[in-house]
Amino acid sequence: MSPKKLIVQKFGGSSVADVRRIQNVAKRIVSYRKKGHNLVVVVSALGDTTDELIDLAHKINSDPSEREMDMLLSTGEQISVALLAMAIHKLGSEAISFTGLQVGIITDTSHTRARIIKINTDKIKEALRQGKIVIVAGFQGVTLNQDITTLGRGGSDLTAVALAKELKADECEIYTDVEGIYTTDPHIEPKARKIEQITYDEMLEMASLGAQVMQARSIEVAKKFDVPIHVRSSFSNNRGTMIIREVKKMEDVLVTGVTLNRKEAKITICDVPDRPGVAARIFKELAANGISVDMIVQNVSHLRQTDISFTVNKADIAKALKLTRKVAKNICAGEVLRDEDIARVSIVGVGMRSHHGVAATMFGALAENKINIEMISTSDISISCIIKKKFIEKAVKVLHKKFRLVNKRG
Amino acid sequence: MSPKKLIVQKFGGSSVADVRRIQNVAKRIVSYRKKGHNLVVVVSALGDTTDELIDLAHKINSDPSEREMDMLLSTGEQISVALLAMAIHKLGSEAISFTGLQVGIITDTSHTRARIIKINTDKIKEALRQGKIVIVAGFQGVTLNQDITTLGRGGSDLTAVALAKELKADECEIYTDVEGIYTTDPHIEPKARKIEQITYDEMLEMASLGAQVMQARSIEVAKKFDVPIHVRSSFSNNRGTMIIREVKKMEDVLVTGVTLNRKEAKITICDVPDRPGVAARIFKELAANGISVDMIVQNVSHLRQTDISFTVNKADIAKALKLTRKVAKNICAGEVLRDEDIARVSIVGVGMRSHHGVAATMFGALAENKINIEMISTSDISISCIIKKKFIEKAVKVLHKKFRLVNKRG
Repeated sequence: MSPKKLIVQKFGGSSVADVRRIQNVAKRIVSYRKKGHNLVVVVSALGDTTDELIDLAHKINSDPSEREMDMLLSTGEQISVALLAMAIHKLGSEAISFTGLQVGIITDTSHTRARIIKINTDKIKEALRQGKIVIVAGFQGVTLNQDITTLGRGGSDLTAVALAKELKADECEIYTDVEGIYTTDPHIEPKARKIEQITYDEMLEMASLGAQVMQARSIEVAKKFDVPIHVRSSFSNNRGTMIIREVKKMEDVLVTGVTLNRKEAKITICDVPDRPGVAARIFKELAANGISVDMIVQNVSHLRQTDISFTVNKADIAKALKLTRKVAKNICAGEVLRDEDIARVSIVGVGMRSHHGVAATMFGALAENKINIEMISTSDISISCIIKKKFIEKAVKVLHKKFRLVNKRG
Repeated sequence: MSPKKLIVQKFGGSSVADVRRIQNVAKRIVSYRKKGHNLVVVVSALGDTTDELIDLAHKINSDPSEREMDMLLSTGEQISVALLAMAIHKLGSEAISFTGLQVGIITDTSHTRARIIKINTDKIKEALRQGKIVIVAGFQGVTLNQDITTLGRGGSDLTAVALAKELKADECEIYTDVEGIYTTDPHIEPKARKIEQITYDEMLEMASLGAQVMQARSIEVAKKFDVPIHVRSSFSNNRGTMIIREVKKMEDVLVTGVTLNRKEAKITICDVPDRPGVAARIFKELAANGISVDMIVQNVSHLRQTDISFTVNKADIAKALKLTRKVAKNICAGEVLRDEDIARVSIVGVGMRSHHGVAATMFGALAENKINIEMISTSDISISCIIKKKFIEKAVKVLHKKFRLVNKRG
């Protein structure tokens, strides 16, 4: 028999979308309990509950108070924990549910995107000592003034990771509706392979480049406190993907995954005067208006003028264009162009750090397939190319194959 | 302009059943605020939310933990308060919502039927000082150990009355879907009249005899602390019914209302040996099994034997019969009979205290109309008769007319 562990398990909304799924999750939890493990279970709201509550709020007030929004949305997870505890009781095990407030997940006062300051673990430890399975509402916390807060989209991941850290848990399992992290999106490349181990840095890079399995902030916290995470399916017993600090890899593994993002649009400002502070004025203006800019490329200047291109989320394109045109006029730049017909393909891998030529291989592979590159941006462990949108699926497949990520059984 | 008051207003589930109704309630609240009044608003869960959550729980566990049930059900009111605050914001007024836990409505640990021990009013007073309308989740409280509790069916009434008492409110308004308290059920007697003023005692008696406008416990609390209650409609601006300590009435008003109850069944034990302690054994056994007995009638004995009849809730009849037959056998009594074909008609009025002949008038009126009386029971301010169920509507109309309760405009 395996040694007794303290395990934090997190189940997302799709894992508890209806009565049958709640019962299945309860069965899984009880099977772990019967092996003697101590369990702290974090649950999200049932299925689409959160979206439904947001819709209801918007019918009443198109710009609802963030404090009241948190008051409203936190009920979703509270319903989940109560029902899950009841389902576990039905199977004959002891369980007790807590809201974020009751546990004492203390956050700052930034409603709808609060940051955790401190977690009180006394109640959880006491319940574990009594042999109970502890069910904690994900996504929510409370200010020192007892106002309810929420942690932003995907916040239940953060609840789980933070609890695992604070409780010094042996494992932190994130249950989801896929089998783990894949080398690329299996909907695009059926030969995509489940990754057995991935580093925090790679996972963060993949999350920021488009992979949507886990909330980026929760991975940052896991990295900071060295909490190993096991991402796996709530519908099977297969091992999923371990997210850890360092992965022992074969020497030739340079690239861990290929990601894509179709949600960006490109803005180009032509003929920008090449003076210090000009770029700063543009991006300050955008930031001040809440628009986050992703890739930025500035060409080498000639004739004391340059072109600056950047990408923003498509949802922000109208607002971003308006602001950019205003600044462009003020700084005596030329035309401002928009291009929504783009997509980004990226390769991610810590192996790149110690190997030259990865970029050249990537560009070469795209060129061989007549895929033109419009913008390039690189980080320590990733390289991204903006290409025409119609080539994105082909680009993913080409790079997936080139870097030998193909599932050998596939 | 009227003087500035502190008003506690309670809106039931039907008053906030959908977005439009929530908006209407918000308008009414804001109109009071604009007159300069300070407002503390207590809200129930939206429409049938509570019943839907109970159904969901029972799909998962037919005998759910009461602690988890309270965790689940309390979300209903939390949703209401957040949405109502948003609706008030939309109208340009300031409002803030609180759960029972956040206010500090401290209760004992009797989950699903907790009793209020203490209410902390600091948060409410501070918010009122800041000019905010305070929205409090009804029906819920919290134990000293921070477990969420609920106050039983109709518990939002209790929240409102208890807050009104604790805050020394000038008024406590209970908004509902009827215009107030009626002399009898208007569905049965269209000539029923809205009562302008009624005493706590009469209201308690009417509630226990079948009138379902307000929770009985909340009236007890109002009586204990002399909190005047105004029961009125959330769909009109008409004055409703004031529930107060003493009503100045014309001398000839003996009866305030006529109530009926069709939910009881009668059990008769024949030939009970007339020995001390025999009745006690029967009713102890029923009480120990959680069955509450309503009317009890024992005839004068002859030949050292007597018949004992009593009524119980129809839902309990099978269990009650089984227990009664067991005891009947042990005490050497005779046959045990059941009768579900009965109903109770009652008259209520503090005027009875000082007037003789009310009972005679009641019995006479029923006799004149060929309605046979099977059991009689009286209290200080009420007289109840058990009759055949088929006569109940006729009995209500006869008594309503006899005691001059008919709406003169009707």
